[in-house]
Amino acid sequence: MDITKLQDLFKQMTREEKIGQTVQLTGNFYDDDTAAITGPMKEMNVSANDLTRVGSILGGTGAADIRRIQDDYMKKNRLGIPLLFMADVIHGYRTIFPIPLALASSWNPALFEETAQMAARESATAGVHVTFSPMVDLVRDARWGRVMESTGEDPFLNEEFAKAMVRGYQGIDLEKDTTRLAACVKHFAAYGAPTAGLDYNTVDLSEHALRENYFSGYEAAIKAGAKMVMSSFNTIKGIPATGNKWLLRTVLREEMGFDGVVISDWAGINELIPHGIAENLKEAAKLSLEAGIDIDMMSGGYLHHLEEIIQENPEMETLLDEAVWRILLLKNELGLFENPYRGADEAAEARELFNETNRKLAQKAAEESVVLLKNNGVLPLKTNEKIALVGPKKETQDLLGSWSLNGLESETQSLAEVLEQAVLIEDNEVFNGLNSYKLSELYTADKIIVALGEDSFMSGEAASRSNIQLPKNQLLLLDELKQLGKPIIAVIITGRPLDLSDVAHQADAIVNAWFPGSLGAQAIADILYGKVNPSGRLTMSFPRTVGQVPIYYNRHTTGRPFTNKQQGEKYLARYLDTENTPLYPFGFGLSYATFSYSDLNVSKPTFTKNEEITVTVSVTNTSDRSGTETVQLYVRDHVAQVVRPIKELKQFKRITLEPNETREVVFQLREEHFHYLHPDGTWSSDPGSFELMVGPNAEMTQAVTVELIRE
Amino acid sequence: MDITKLQDLFKQMTREEKIGQTVQLTGNFYDDDTAAITGPMKEMNVSANDLTRVGSILGGTGAADIRRIQDDYMKKNRLGIPLLFMADVIHGYRTIFPIPLALASSWNPALFEETAQMAARESATAGVHVTFSPMVDLVRDARWGRVMESTGEDPFLNEEFAKAMVRGYQGIDLEKDTTRLAACVKHFAAYGAPTAGLDYNTVDLSEHALRENYFSGYEAAIKAGAKMVMSSFNTIKGIPATGNKWLLRTVLREEMGFDGVVISDWAGINELIPHGIAENLKEAAKLSLEAGIDIDMMSGGYLHHLEEIIQENPEMETLLDEAVWRILLLKNELGLFENPYRGADEAAEARELFNETNRKLAQKAAEESVVLLKNNGVLPLKTNEKIALVGPKKETQDLLGSWSLNGLESETQSLAEVLEQAVLIEDNEVFNGLNSYKLSELYTADKIIVALGEDSFMSGEAASRSNIQLPKNQLLLLDELKQLGKPIIAVIITGRPLDLSDVAHQADAIVNAWFPGSLGAQAIADILYGKVNPSGRLTMSFPRTVGQVPIYYNRHTTGRPFTNKQQGEKYLARYLDTENTPLYPFGFGLSYATFSYSDLNVSKPTFTKNEEITVTVSVTNTSDRSGTETVQLYVRDHVAQVVRPIKELKQFKRITLEPNETREVVFQLREEHFHYLHPDGTWSSDPGSFELMVGPNAEMTQAVTVELIRE
Repeated sequence: MDITKLQDLFKQMTREEKIGQTVQLTGNFYDDDTAAITGPMKEMNVSANDLTRVGSILGGTGAADIRRIQDDYMKKNRLGIPLLFMADVIHGYRTIFPIPLALASSWNPALFEETAQMAARESATAGVHVTFSPMVDLVRDARWGRVMESTGEDPFLNEEFAKAMVRGYQGIDLEKDTTRLAACVKHFAAYGAPTAGLDYNTVDLSEHALRENYFSGYEAAIKAGAKMVMSSFNTIKGIPATGNKWLLRTVLREEMGFDGVVISDWAGINELIPHGIAENLKEAAKLSLEAGIDIDMMSGGYLHHLEEIIQENPEMETLLDEAVWRILLLKNELGLFENPYRGADEAAEARELFNETNRKLAQKAAEESVVLLKNNGVLPLKTNEKIALVGPKKETQDLLGSWSLNGLESETQSLAEVLEQAVLIEDNEVFNGLNSYKLSELYTADKIIVALGEDSFMSGEAASRSNIQLPKNQLLLLDELKQLGKPIIAVIITGRPLDLSDVAHQADAIVNAWFPGSLGAQAIADILYGKVNPSGRLTMSFPRTVGQVPIYYNRHTTGRPFTNKQQGEKYLARYLDTENTPLYPFGFGLSYATFSYSDLNVSKPTFTKNEEITVTVSVTNTSDRSGTETVQLYVRDHVAQVVRPIKELKQFKRITLEPNETREVVFQLREEHFHYLHPDGTWSSDPGSFELMVGPNAEMTQAVTVELIRE
Repeated sequence: MDITKLQDLFKQMTREEKIGQTVQLTGNFYDDDTAAITGPMKEMNVSANDLTRVGSILGGTGAADIRRIQDDYMKKNRLGIPLLFMADVIHGYRTIFPIPLALASSWNPALFEETAQMAARESATAGVHVTFSPMVDLVRDARWGRVMESTGEDPFLNEEFAKAMVRGYQGIDLEKDTTRLAACVKHFAAYGAPTAGLDYNTVDLSEHALRENYFSGYEAAIKAGAKMVMSSFNTIKGIPATGNKWLLRTVLREEMGFDGVVISDWAGINELIPHGIAENLKEAAKLSLEAGIDIDMMSGGYLHHLEEIIQENPEMETLLDEAVWRILLLKNELGLFENPYRGADEAAEARELFNETNRKLAQKAAEESVVLLKNNGVLPLKTNEKIALVGPKKETQDLLGSWSLNGLESETQSLAEVLEQAVLIEDNEVFNGLNSYKLSELYTADKIIVALGEDSFMSGEAASRSNIQLPKNQLLLLDELKQLGKPIIAVIITGRPLDLSDVAHQADAIVNAWFPGSLGAQAIADILYGKVNPSGRLTMSFPRTVGQVPIYYNRHTTGRPFTNKQQGEKYLARYLDTENTPLYPFGFGLSYATFSYSDLNVSKPTFTKNEEITVTVSVTNTSDRSGTETVQLYVRDHVAQVVRPIKELKQFKRITLEPNETREVVFQLREEHFHYLHPDGTWSSDPGSFELMVGPNAEMTQAVTVELIRE
């Protein structure tokens, strides 16, 4: 629809109709087309008449359903403004890819783009228009359950993955390409930094930290064209994001230039009441509209109170108009006025969901996501070895992870199914002792695979853990197995970085498989048998103990930094009882190949503002297997006006090297790579020396120093 | 000296002499009066000539030594400006009182004042002029080792204790009363909030949080007249405090009106280099003088670079002059121009140190500091019971705690010494089994006292722990003892809130004794035998596990608050694997008496800005023992412009009730008690409803609601 026609339409809207556009309800309000007012409709006091004006729907249930709802709605809506359908398509729709934290371990933005595109394709045929993804909340505390939905602790990677996901979901022509979705970046802002890792808890960060680390992921998604932004549940500077005008108007609209639709999180407007900044829902609705929320997801505040609020505060009519106009623009950008069903197509849906192409990508994604954390030469397995398979995760189909609502466990193979040649041993057989036939199988096995980990409900929303070890019975199982004196390979299913200190002590190999998705077991099996060479790299530090959190590689320097050289000195920033380092650092992951680094060079030792600097390093595959290495470039600013991180990832290159192949990896740095947030709020660089560090992870780096000089 | 004379003196000073005043060195620079340049003097490049101009000395070693140094110095100093002697008199000088976190558990500011006064008296006779105390850093994370030197997690208590300590140290006439010291409040600011509980680590807090919780303790000490402020090691808004002009000039000088002397912490100026905000010591010195540091403690930056800095930046001469003038004023306020030795007096020192009066106060302080955390009716002990005493703390004299440099363990009795009647059992006898004579003693004992805890080096500066449980062998000992089926009384020696979950599970009584000081063992014994009825109350929450930290009672409300009533609901701010509550809450502590609360009333349900509101509650001693109860009043603001804490301590009353006595406790509240920090930076109240909660700790409270209305 051209913009003048849209404006004409807008002018015809009554205030009641405008308010309707700002309301989002779940699909089940439309379940019964006889429109009997029951259940949630009654609780939220939604009338049948309201349903004809509501602007958008949350939670898609397939093409047929969505076509029926839209059909019915269009008949009743006076001006024929179609409904917008949104859903939580987080890491796949029906074909479930690894959880985002796992996908991030691929260090492969192109893979993120592919999986996002395929998730869009599947869900678009099912009638979804908008996905509540990407989530780019930076996380430094593994206790927080929703870490599984994040891409980790690094601002730069978060930006890269955010852009890739937005491209994957939205493509380049959202209106025409009905296999795409609009992306809603979330949760603005800093939802991933709750105090004590407790979901929904207070976030308290300096504005400096917000701007230095936390905002850039959202901004990258916005710059990549994300159509929507979701406000977070947490507070920023003492005010919940949903009612935070500084955050949503000054930072998001003015500074970041976002002109799309802002939606609250589930009942976020209502939460201003328990948060204690609104006395009642009407006050909450008023604060939210003022702050900049365009769509009220499931609080009823806008539906029931905006009319009265605007009558009492006529100056707020403009805010409503702006919100509605943005919503109409989005519907128009999705081409809904021409085709209110958009991609919803039962036939396409049947062809598309979980088809072979999609499954193949799911397996590839899982293969790239798995991180080999330890390997004392026991992997890969040989086909002639006798393998025992034990542990609570050996037969589980709970491999999809949280936020995989349309994925089917029934379509998901377990490890036991794909590792047909392995002998299955029950945990209680191990615990209860001897003499059974099964145990003799264990005694005669060459190697033991023990499948351990979390259940999917142990991560995701509202799934914070104070203890991030494996469940105690699993650690006891490992102790028992260790006594057999056989090589132990631990496969870890998890939604978060766990404290794997005990596992690292007992197991000869650790395969961190995350929740690997629909084809996860196959990917793990191929890695175990060396059909696939693991290449995943951590995007979050794995702590030695929960007592180290938050722990992250890009921490600020202290005035009394500790390095291992100073073991005898007391008055340094160190724990008495553990290392400062994580068990497995950011960027870490093993391959069956081995790599060496040499000849780190810079094109020139000094450079000026307009000069590029070229960093080269030779990487050699020193093994007899082909393998993929992720070469990482970090920068440290030696002196600045504010304290700076000890290192910051600036670039990385993922390269595959044949046996004994050497390749020169080249990085180009510009002056912008040395920008930082100054106390006066500007991003720029200062002349001076910088350390450039290159290596396979954040701890094993070689360094050269360069100097930025004034022209 | 009158002020005109002082001004005349100031005018005669050369720049070199002025710079000297800003330099603080340790006393050992003056150890050898032959002035051979060796050791630290050489390292810091201090010349014998420099020593004649240095303004102050750190670390007192007794009256004779200090008189000798001052004597010698006065002979050499051209203008006869005496040295100022400062020392870390933290919880006593020679008579060691319980650590500050323990003293705080008394909830008795008068006791803090008494102990501070006595510490002043002892150290003044030894020649000390200034103590680096009080430390009022608010702490919410027990991993931080220096928590032992703090007064806990509550801003209001921190303020009360800060004021009491300043009064105790300084008295009302610092110049005349030479038994007093000048107080140096520290560490400005927020040193107690390092990331991950790691000492010296980055502090990142919103300005809102700084102003809401962290600043008030320092400000209270300043308002009480503290003569000095020490800058902290940590960053504030990304800039180390020592180089933070906003912090030291805008907040400290302008907003708080502090006009005394600001000193860096040990080598704090030098630390701007590893912090990466200064290239070298000269730059660091320049930043520090600009930021507002008057005295450079042990970095050499001012000594070696101020001359050149001022030559290059003539406008900075004023900053130097201001600093020096403040230092001279302080020396004058201490009467040093008339009497450079001030209280230093070997005879008085001999009379004063560790005398009976002082020891008595130390015992009283310990008695009030001990917190009884659990008691299944096994305490107090009866004199006819057979008691076994076991555990690694049974014979230790390491009861003084960190920061007790002049205290003597040799003068400190152990538990074994004071519990003469108890049979001592060695830990390895318990572990290694049966048949020994000693073990038969254990088998025939009526009750077992097990003395557990930390060594003093495990808390204090640079003593962060990632694991805050008791050492593992102590937990194993407890397991072994538990199997005997006898009543177990755990006495805990600690410098921090420990995770006592296992102890709470195994022991029938827990006596949290902290590091109780010189007379600690006696106090513990008197409590065990009921000669003293315990009355201590926690000023920090004791977590169930380190995975809950930071945990504190005055947390902000979330949008999805969890209460026990909602056990079945998932989407709430809660952990999957533990409670949200601490093991022992803020304000908690048992007595051998029991108390009940009734008839909570307010004088009127609504009040206006100028009306007082009277809250009354009846407290009854329901036991047959006299006992002391600390009645606590908390307030919750239901609706505000920012998210508010779920409760805030506003007042408390410590009352002693005879058996079956009932007393009406009266609190007077004014509108100021309902002030909070608004988003615009003002402290004021909003009309609306408030919950007033009264009870024996932060979790067991009864409530009434009042409403503040406009006049």
